Amino acid sequence: MSKDHKVFLSEKDMPRQWYNLAADLPTPPQPPLGPDGNPIGPEMLAPVFPMNLIEQEVSTERWIDIPEGVLEMLYRWRPTPLHRAYHLEKALGTPARIYYKNESVSPAGSHKPNTAVAQAWYNKEFGIKKLTTETGAGQWGSALAFACSLVGIECKVYMVRVSFDQKPFRKMLMAAYGAECVASPSPETKAGQDILAKYPDTPGSLGIAISEAIEAAVTDPSGESRYSLGSVLNHVILHQTIIGQEVKKQLEIFGERTPDTIIGCAGGGSNFAGIAFPFVADKIHGADIDIIPVEPASCPTLTRAPFSYDHGDVACMTPLLPMYSLGHEFIPPPIHAGGLRYHGMSPLVSAAAVEGLLNPRSIHQLECYESAILFAKTEGILVAPETSHAVAATIQEAKKAKEEGKEKVIVFNLSGHGMMDLVGYDKFLNGELTDYALPEEEITKYTDPLKNFPQPSTAKSGKW
Amino acid sequence: MSKDHKVFLSEKDMPRQWYNLAADLPTPPQPPLGPDGNPIGPEMLAPVFPMNLIEQEVSTERWIDIPEGVLEMLYRWRPTPLHRAYHLEKALGTPARIYYKNESVSPAGSHKPNTAVAQAWYNKEFGIKKLTTETGAGQWGSALAFACSLVGIECKVYMVRVSFDQKPFRKMLMAAYGAECVASPSPETKAGQDILAKYPDTPGSLGIAISEAIEAAVTDPSGESRYSLGSVLNHVILHQTIIGQEVKKQLEIFGERTPDTIIGCAGGGSNFAGIAFPFVADKIHGADIDIIPVEPASCPTLTRAPFSYDHGDVACMTPLLPMYSLGHEFIPPPIHAGGLRYHGMSPLVSAAAVEGLLNPRSIHQLECYESAILFAKTEGILVAPETSHAVAATIQEAKKAKEEGKEKVIVFNLSGHGMMDLVGYDKFLNGELTDYALPEEEITKYTDPLKNFPQPSTAKSGKW
Repeated sequence: MSKDHKVFLSEKDMPRQWYNLAADLPTPPQPPLGPDGNPIGPEMLAPVFPMNLIEQEVSTERWIDIPEGVLEMLYRWRPTPLHRAYHLEKALGTPARIYYKNESVSPAGSHKPNTAVAQAWYNKEFGIKKLTTETGAGQWGSALAFACSLVGIECKVYMVRVSFDQKPFRKMLMAAYGAECVASPSPETKAGQDILAKYPDTPGSLGIAISEAIEAAVTDPSGESRYSLGSVLNHVILHQTIIGQEVKKQLEIFGERTPDTIIGCAGGGSNFAGIAFPFVADKIHGADIDIIPVEPASCPTLTRAPFSYDHGDVACMTPLLPMYSLGHEFIPPPIHAGGLRYHGMSPLVSAAAVEGLLNPRSIHQLECYESAILFAKTEGILVAPETSHAVAATIQEAKKAKEEGKEKVIVFNLSGHGMMDLVGYDKFLNGELTDYALPEEEITKYTDPLKNFPQPSTAKSGKW
Repeated sequence: MSKDHKVFLSEKDMPRQWYNLAADLPTPPQPPLGPDGNPIGPEMLAPVFPMNLIEQEVSTERWIDIPEGVLEMLYRWRPTPLHRAYHLEKALGTPARIYYKNESVSPAGSHKPNTAVAQAWYNKEFGIKKLTTETGAGQWGSALAFACSLVGIECKVYMVRVSFDQKPFRKMLMAAYGAECVASPSPETKAGQDILAKYPDTPGSLGIAISEAIEAAVTDPSGESRYSLGSVLNHVILHQTIIGQEVKKQLEIFGERTPDTIIGCAGGGSNFAGIAFPFVADKIHGADIDIIPVEPASCPTLTRAPFSYDHGDVACMTPLLPMYSLGHEFIPPPIHAGGLRYHGMSPLVSAAAVEGLLNPRSIHQLECYESAILFAKTEGILVAPETSHAVAATIQEAKKAKEEGKEKVIVFNLSGHGMMDLVGYDKFLNGELTDYALPEEEITKYTDPLKNFPQPSTAKSGKW
């Protein structure tokens, strides 16, 4: 049993396969639906994604090999360390043993490059010359810019306006990697023009930016552009599962058996699924693990939205996906955790929640910032505002363990650092932030129309 | 021989002692002088530094034990990885094998916390309640803020105005760690008031900020404040030598023997000395190593300034130090590598240069930015503007190895990431930066007066 503060793995111990939860879910996941309400075929996605990634999207294989070319890129920073949070434990006086997986050591400062390098590599293999994408806080945009520069293809990023304005450094980082970044909604696409006409002062949202990026990809006359998504979809979730696989090996080196609690913040769901899904598999096979996705109280997808079919974007360009959704027209308040401002939730994460495998929780932003400051002053790392939700839930669980006198093992995903997200901290420290209690009618306004879509429980399950 | 992209060490392989070059220099280093021109005694420094650090400052012991309490803090991120730059090598088509020590993975994003945690710990041990300091680019200020929050003492930072204005996020980071940060020159100190009266529009300099921070410490009526310096002095240099010691172990795991070239950027000298001094020791004992400190062409201390006695600050509050100096009244042009804008150079680095153990080089900023962009697009990490000087020299050496057809082993110190220094990259990419050829008369204007100080060659060497 290691008494170290952190455990590294060598490159030979890095996972060689991605884990696909679709193979293990008790009920097979339900398919995306086309405009006619019928399951879509993979070929319908071909204008948007390269076929090699579509194959991953629809796969029900349990394990999918990671190509050598992708490993080669992941080696630049992976495996990432798993830390024991001795100093936070001490500050809380908790009997819990707290561990955190440090994804902030990647060149882009978050977990996002795990899938960015894979997606860039598969697109390049397929002959694609340019990727378009959206970004919220900018972590995904800079990760894809980084990945595209490594494989040598172009990158264009539509960045949610509120983040574009608040976080100018992220767009400079994308530029340094050679990518182009514009504020969304932009006047460059029809989707952007429509929204700007309707809401000229909109802060933007991930849903809008996704519409713009998809439109830009599918309307490129060369046919050599595709779209890339940083979360939500099955193949993206898949690429993140190396996180949880590494955690298992590292917990073993620390001398721990099955952890009691796994925590990750959840916006689209990818960093949460990345750490959680290998443990969800254990839970399906009988392990007793509390698995907690944490979302902002102002964008409470898993905790307050219905499980429904909905579009992934505002302009309804994506197929209908079976997911918890606040409605594709819901525009979350401009909280600083931009990466969590998404109306939907990964269909795979949603399916796991429907199965009762997850224990979702929402937390208000002031508690999150306060928790993050305590974490910085004890463990030293200033986390991203998104990650602060995982820190807050971890502290809640550690306090509960203290009350109950239980020696719990809690693991959370430190999905990114906050070095480029300091405006939110500044406002918090200056007392300029408040919590926002989202009224029920603001939710039903956008979720009621979802009743007009086919309902997931009635849709045919099975093959695409 | 490892084919890995990087080599970690476990915590048990972390150095347990700091290395002191003073023990091995062929000519013992010359002492600091007081206002009367005589060597000062350690007690004269007592109002400025705690006695336990003064003992390290004057020590000629070769090895100094690292206290357990300091190791405990270093474990939060150390040992840091040593990477092989396969992708940069390939892009350059060089037969050289390039390695870089990645100090950017620390919570503050640079090598600075190595000494910050040690200084905070020793001050706390001595009963000090508050540290004052200066900062250029903000890396040192945020590192000390981080360290003070870990040990639980107050921290006040005087930040060079040009950086304070250009890099607002750094002061927010310091605030998140609970430190107070003001622009220097400030109206809060006599030193600041004097400079503001003379040059109201000054961009500030490290020399001015040092004067203010020292004044604030020594005039605190409680007697419980001390000053902390992020570079230059012997004890600071000492704390950084874990870098080079780790590199030696890691090169061995990579299967390398003695490297041919060691490179670090040099402002005050601490990150350079940190990686270089353990190799300077080998060179003194006969190893054939080219050891290159790299400085900005616009602040060319080692390459164009005289070796002289001079003050470390503008207000002449520090003793006279034997060092290469552009004159304490020299204010470097506001290039973006703020951490390298210092008129002097660590006395230990200066002594090694006088002995002919170093091969200093200066590089203009455009070449540095260009080199950093190539590094980002191949290796993935966007380095700090300071570090870009080391990258540029590495690329120069790798190209030379290609011309000569030599399989050289080149190691450089990646002292920090550039995630919070993107304004400079933005200006570079927009073509707004130019190089500045510093005219000889701008140097002699400030170095000629140094002839009035005692000359190092005539000063008595030996004990303080």
